[in-house]
Amino acid sequence: MVFDGAGRVLLIRRKNEPFKGAFALPGGFVEIGETVEAACRREVLEETGVAVGELRLVGVYSDPKRDPRGHTVSVAYATLVQEAISPRAGSDAAAAEWVRDWRNAGLAFDHVVIIADAERFRSS
Amino acid sequence: MVFDGAGRVLLIRRKNEPFKGAFALPGGFVEIGETVEAACRREVLEETGVAVGELRLVGVYSDPKRDPRGHTVSVAYATLVQEAISPRAGSDAAAAEWVRDWRNAGLAFDHVVIIADAERFRSS
Repeated sequence: MVFDGAGRVLLIRRKNEPFKGAFALPGGFVEIGETVEAACRREVLEETGVAVGELRLVGVYSDPKRDPRGHTVSVAYATLVQEAISPRAGSDAAAAEWVRDWRNAGLAFDHVVIIADAERFRSS
Repeated sequence: MVFDGAGRVLLIRRKNEPFKGAFALPGGFVEIGETVEAACRREVLEETGVAVGELRLVGVYSDPKRDPRGHTVSVAYATLVQEAISPRAGSDAAAAEWVRDWRNAGLAFDHVVIIADAERFRSS
């Protein structure tokens, strides 16, 4: 999760199924030979054009039913960018934008829960 | 990582390669269809006979070189048991015991780093 100084979160619109067209967090699968943190940075850059720095571990999400494609484990990190960066959609993303009202954005998967966890983290 | 009230950590001796005979944290692979937390509790119970409650996420370890068998991601959790429980070795463990001087125990993999991270966490 990339947050900006105004409390907005960087979301993409999914180009592919499942949840095609829905808002989602940027992310993707770890490649053999890269760390989870490197995969996180690579996917955010590929999908949104935003380069992120320090990552803070938020949680690990592994409910077997959370992804209709099969059992998938997501490791979620949060980072803050101070300056307003204009995202640019790429690879699996049809669009990339800063969203303030993410609770009502109809997010894919369990991403609304993940962002809520990160918000709690930020305020702790 | 299972800590007791006296600051000791519950370790096993590995029955199999790699690091056969060395001390290591209890743990193992997640099965398809179970959460990471459930896998953690199951492996600790199978290897040490200790049933653990609440888990606190410590970190995610994914250096491609951390396991000689291939690229392996470990999710590490910590828990505290207040009472002195006598462990009982099972499944992949040749022994299970409470260890105070884990820094000098010749731990397998990167487990000494993981325990150090958990210790920092406990004191924060």
